[in-house]
Amino acid sequence: MRHLDSIKSPADLKGLSEADLKILAIEIRQFLLESLSRTGGHLSSNLGIVELTIALHKIFDSPEDKIIFDVGHQGYVHKLLTGRMDQFPTLRQLDGMSGFLKRSESEHDAFEAGHSSTSLSAALGFAKARSLKGTKEHVIAVIGDGALTGGMAFEALNHIGHDREKVIIILNDNEMSISENVGGLSKYLDRIRTSNNYYKLKGETEFILSKVPGVGGAMARGLKRLKGSIKYFFVPGMLFEDLGITYIGPVDGHDLPALIHSLDRAKEANDGPILIHVLTRKGKGFMPAELDPDKYHGVGKFSLSKGVTELPAAKTLSQTFGDKLTALAGEDERIIALTAAMCDGTGLEGFRARYPKRFFDVGIAEQHAVTLSASLACAGMKPVFAVYSTFLQRAYDQVLHDVCIQNANVTLAIDRAGLVGQDGETHHGMFDLSFLQPLPNMTIYSPKDAPELEATLSHIMRREAGPVAIRYPRGVAVTLLPFEGAPDAPQLERCEGDDFALIAVGNVFANGLEAYERLSALGFRGRLINPRILKPLPVDALTEAIGDTTAIFTLEDNVLTGGFGERITLALDPQRCNVVNFAVPDHFVEHGTIQQLHERLGLSGKRVAQRIQQSLVTRNMKS
Amino acid sequence: MRHLDSIKSPADLKGLSEADLKILAIEIRQFLLESLSRTGGHLSSNLGIVELTIALHKIFDSPEDKIIFDVGHQGYVHKLLTGRMDQFPTLRQLDGMSGFLKRSESEHDAFEAGHSSTSLSAALGFAKARSLKGTKEHVIAVIGDGALTGGMAFEALNHIGHDREKVIIILNDNEMSISENVGGLSKYLDRIRTSNNYYKLKGETEFILSKVPGVGGAMARGLKRLKGSIKYFFVPGMLFEDLGITYIGPVDGHDLPALIHSLDRAKEANDGPILIHVLTRKGKGFMPAELDPDKYHGVGKFSLSKGVTELPAAKTLSQTFGDKLTALAGEDERIIALTAAMCDGTGLEGFRARYPKRFFDVGIAEQHAVTLSASLACAGMKPVFAVYSTFLQRAYDQVLHDVCIQNANVTLAIDRAGLVGQDGETHHGMFDLSFLQPLPNMTIYSPKDAPELEATLSHIMRREAGPVAIRYPRGVAVTLLPFEGAPDAPQLERCEGDDFALIAVGNVFANGLEAYERLSALGFRGRLINPRILKPLPVDALTEAIGDTTAIFTLEDNVLTGGFGERITLALDPQRCNVVNFAVPDHFVEHGTIQQLHERLGLSGKRVAQRIQQSLVTRNMKS
Ligand SMILES: [Mg+2]
Ligand SMILES: [Mg+2]
Repeated sequence: MRHLDSIKSPADLKGLSEADLKILAIEIRQFLLESLSRTGGHLSSNLGIVELTIALHKIFDSPEDKIIFDVGHQGYVHKLLTGRMDQFPTLRQLDGMSGFLKRSESEHDAFEAGHSSTSLSAALGFAKARSLKGTKEHVIAVIGDGALTGGMAFEALNHIGHDREKVIIILNDNEMSISENVGGLSKYLDRIRTSNNYYKLKGETEFILSKVPGVGGAMARGLKRLKGSIKYFFVPGMLFEDLGITYIGPVDGHDLPALIHSLDRAKEANDGPILIHVLTRKGKGFMPAELDPDKYHGVGKFSLSKGVTELPAAKTLSQTFGDKLTALAGEDERIIALTAAMCDGTGLEGFRARYPKRFFDVGIAEQHAVTLSASLACAGMKPVFAVYSTFLQRAYDQVLHDVCIQNANVTLAIDRAGLVGQDGETHHGMFDLSFLQPLPNMTIYSPKDAPELEATLSHIMRREAGPVAIRYPRGVAVTLLPFEGAPDAPQLERCEGDDFALIAVGNVFANGLEAYERLSALGFRGRLINPRILKPLPVDALTEAIGDTTAIFTLEDNVLTGGFGERITLALDPQRCNVVNFAVPDHFVEHGTIQQLHERLGLSGKRVAQRIQQSLVTRNMKS
Repeated sequence: MRHLDSIKSPADLKGLSEADLKILAIEIRQFLLESLSRTGGHLSSNLGIVELTIALHKIFDSPEDKIIFDVGHQGYVHKLLTGRMDQFPTLRQLDGMSGFLKRSESEHDAFEAGHSSTSLSAALGFAKARSLKGTKEHVIAVIGDGALTGGMAFEALNHIGHDREKVIIILNDNEMSISENVGGLSKYLDRIRTSNNYYKLKGETEFILSKVPGVGGAMARGLKRLKGSIKYFFVPGMLFEDLGITYIGPVDGHDLPALIHSLDRAKEANDGPILIHVLTRKGKGFMPAELDPDKYHGVGKFSLSKGVTELPAAKTLSQTFGDKLTALAGEDERIIALTAAMCDGTGLEGFRARYPKRFFDVGIAEQHAVTLSASLACAGMKPVFAVYSTFLQRAYDQVLHDVCIQNANVTLAIDRAGLVGQDGETHHGMFDLSFLQPLPNMTIYSPKDAPELEATLSHIMRREAGPVAIRYPRGVAVTLLPFEGAPDAPQLERCEGDDFALIAVGNVFANGLEAYERLSALGFRGRLINPRILKPLPVDALTEAIGDTTAIFTLEDNVLTGGFGERITLALDPQRCNVVNFAVPDHFVEHGTIQQLHERLGLSGKRVAQRIQQSLVTRNMKS
C-alpha cells in the first residue's frame, strides 16, 4: 500500500520517517500527475510545493496551527494530506472540489484566497487573535515571490515587522510569478539565490569584523567597488531584516530534511516574525512542466507520456484584442500596452515582441498599473491596461481617482469579464459593470464578438476623450453576426416583430441570439438588440430600437444589483414598457464550466428562451 | 517689496541668491500663517516643505520638468511659487482655489492626488513617456514617509528599481504620517535618522574592509551583537538600494544650500532612479504647530498669537462611534478596533487608550486593514475597521473577497460617508452605496443621528452574521428625533397623510426632516421614512410604511447610479408608485461647505422641499 493511502489527516504524517516522507513525496507527485492529467488543474505550482507542504504538516499541527496559502491554487498537496484524496476526480467541476482552499471543505483550510498577496495580512490576524485569546498555536503564511510584489503584501510586512507578533512566513521562491517575474524585489531575491560565494563571503566578512576590537581608524576612499559587492552579499534577506523580520535561508525547497530543519528552527524560535526563504522549482518532477512551467500553470487534460498536446487551439478573444492592439500600435506610436503579470493571458505576447519599449508588465500590481496608465495619459500617451475583470477590483480607487477624476485618456481592456468557469467564486468577473457604471467620465463598451471587438478597439484608439472600458469574456474569438453600424451605437441585430425585445450585452450576446432563434422557431416575433455602448446609456437609440415593443428583456452576466439591466429598467418609461432583467443573482457563483453556470443561473440560450416564453404567456393570460 | 511678490512663476526664482531664497522662505511662512489663519487649510505639512519646494523650483524647470506631489495638500508652497498667491483667500472655498493640486488650475500641476501613495507610479509614467518621446525633462516625485507605507508605493518602487528609468524620488520624511507613523519601514527610517554615529561608523567600517586584500580566513562565531549594529548602520538606505534605487541622504530639509546641492547632484546623475531622503519638521517655523503638528494638519481659522483656540468643540459622530465602541468592548472582549492612520479622525483615541491591545493602527494601508479584519473574524474575533468612505475605495477587492466571499463577521464603520466639504472631489464619500450594495452577504446600515448610531452599533456587535457596513457622515452628533423601534427595521418617523412619502437615508435625514417640515407648513400631508437598513432592502416594511401613498421620493448623498434611491425605484411596483430619486448626479463634486454643496446639488432641505412641491403640483395638474 502507498503511504499516501494511509494519510487521512496530517496526524498520520507524524509517524513517518524522513525516508518514508521522501517516498510519500514521490507518491504525491505521481498522484497529482495522474489525477490532473484526467481533470486538468494547476499543475506546476503544486508539483513545486510537494516537499514544502509535507514538511509543514510534519512540523506543525493543523488545524490548531494555521497554515495559510497565498492564492489557494497551490493547495492541492495540502488537500491531499488533509483527507480529500477521493475528491480529486471532481476537481474544479460543478459541485466538485474547489481548485482553491475553501473553509467549507475542510477545517484545515484556515483562510480562503483567490487573489494574490493576502496571506501575510491573514496570518497576522490569526496571530493577533492568538495573543488576545492567550493560546499557543503557530501561524504560517506560504507566499510566492510573485505575490510578494503585490502592494498589500508589503503593507502587511511593514505591520508584521513593527508588531513583533510571531508569524512564520514561508517565501516560496520559484523564480517566477504566473508568467515572468518583474521588479527590483525579484532581482534582489535573484542575487541571494545566485550568489555561489554567498555563505563564504558572509562568514569571512563577519570574521574579519569580529577581530576588530572597537571601531576606529580613518575614513576610507574609493570603496565603491567593494561596497557594491558587500552590500549585496553581506547579510542576505537584509531587506526583510530592515523591516524587522528575521530571515532564514535560502533553503532548498526539495530537500525534505533541510526544510524540516528550518521549519523546526522557526517553530522553536521566540523572537518575533520569521521569514524562511525556500527555493522551489515549478513543475518539479515532471520534465515537460519543469521545462515550460507556464504551460502547466493551469492545464486541461493532458497525456502523461506526451504532456500537453498542442492542439491547434481556437483563437481567443484575448488574442483578437492583442493582435488588433498590435496592429493599431503600428499606426499610432502613442499606444502603450500594460499588464499586471498576465501578458499571455491577455493576449499581449505579440505586442511585447513587436513593441517591447511600449509594453510594460508591472508584476502583480494592479493599483500601480492603473495610476501608471493615468500618468502616461497625462503625458500624452494612449495607455491600454489589459486586465482580468476580477483583478481590476484591486485598483478600484485608482480607476476612480487617477483615471476618472482626471478624465485621463486611459483604456481598460477588461478581459475575463463575466463568468470564467472553473476558477470559481474568486475569479468571476461579475461585478465590473456595477462598479464602473457609477463612475463619472467613464465610457463602457461591450462588443458581442471578435469583429466587433476589433472595430470597437479601433474606434477607442482614435478618440481622445477620457476613460474607456471595453469588456469581453473568456472565450473563443467567434463571429456571431457580421459587424454593421457604428461601434458606439446600439444595433438592432434582428427585427421580426413586436412580441418582445431582448437587449443582450456583448458577453452573453450569443446566448441572447440562441434564445431569440429558439423563440422565433416557436413563433414569437421579436427584436434582438446589441447595446454595444453601456455608458453613457444610448437611451434614445435604444428606445428607437425597441420601437412599439412593450415586453423588454435584458440579459447580462454581471450581478443584477447595479448591473446593466437595471439601467435599462430605470431608463425606460415604466408606464409603457415592462422590463425583466436576466442577470447573476445576489450570491457568489461557484465553479463549473461557463455553460453549466449559465444554465444554472438561467442565463443560457435555452433558459432565457424558456423564461421569456413563460413571461410572454403569463402576460398574454393577464391581458 | 517682498521677494514673494516678485515671484509670478518659478522662472522668477532662478535669479535669487541663496541668501535671498532664505529670506523668501521666511516670507512664505509668514504668508502661509497669515493666509491660513484666515481661511484654514493644511498648515503643518506646508510649513514643513517650504525650503524643499523652493529648492525644487530653483533647480528644476516646471512645467517642462514634472514635479509630482504625493497627496496634493502639501502643494501650497508650490501654488505660491506658480502664480496663485492671489487665490489664497479663496482656498478650499466654493468655486475657490482647491486645497489639492489641480491640472485645471495650473500647467505646473502635472498630476492630481487626493489619496496617498500614488506619486511614484505617476512619476514613472511621465518618465516612460519622456523616453518614448525622446525628450529630456526631469521627473520628480515628492512623497512622505507615511505615504511610502501604502502598498501601491511599494509596487511602484519595485517597478522603478527594475526599470532603471531616471526618476528622482524625494522622500519627505517628517517622522509621521497624518497621525503617528507605524510599521517596520518607519522604524527603519528612524534608525537612519537617529544614528549620530552613522557617518562615522560607515566610513570606518568601509576603511577596515578596504584594508583587507582579498576576502580570506576562517568562519567567525558569536557575531550577533556586532552584526546587529552593522546591518543597521552599514549602508543607509540599503533597503532602497536593494530594490535598485540609488540612495542619497539623509539631508536636512530646512537647510536650503544642502537641499540645492543634493537636488543638483540628483539632477546631474545619469544612472537610473534616485531617492533623496530629506528630513523635515512638520509645522516648521510656527511653534504651536511644531509642538503639535497633528492639531495643525488641517485647521480652521486660528489666531497667530494664540494658535488654535480650544473651543469646546461639539461632539462629532466619529466620537459617538468611538465612545460607543469602547463601551461595547467592555462587554465583549472579542471586539477589536482597526484604523488606517486615522485614529483621531475616526474617534478611536478613547478605544486606543482603554484597550491598547485590541487597537491596531496599520498605517496608510487599507487593503491590509480589511484582510487583517477578515482573518481576525475567521479566528473568532469581532473586528471593526473604522475608515473614511473615500479610503475604503482602496480596499474594494479585499472587502469583496476576504470579507464577503468568506462571509466574515467584519464590521466596516464607514465614517465621512457622503459629501465631506472642503477636501473636495477626491474625498467625498459618494460611491460607497454603489460599490457595497452589489456585494453578496453584505448588510448595510445608515443611522440618522447619534442615538441611532449607538443603537445600531450595539445591535451589530451582538449579532454574529457576516459582513456589515454602517455608514455615517462627517458632522456633529445631533439627536434629530428620539430613537424608537428597531435598528434593523425602517421607521415611519412622521405620518400625516398620503400626499407624498419621502424616504431619506440616514446621512441626509436631517435634510429630509427639514423638507418634510417645510412641506407640512405649506399644507402637504405626507410621510417621512427612515429606512435604517439599506441592504437587504426591507421591501415589505417599506411598502407598509408607504401605505397608500403613490408619490414617492428618495433622498441620499450617494451618486444616483447604483445608489439607494434606484433600489427603491426598482423594488416598488411602477404601476402603483411614481418614484423620484434625489441623489448626487453623474459628475464629480467640487469643494465647498457641505451645506453649499447640498444646496447646489438640490439635496438641501429647502431644495428638496421645492423639488417635491414642484413634482406634486405637476402631478396634480396632470391628473
Ligand atoms: Mg513565484
Ligand atoms: Mg510623513
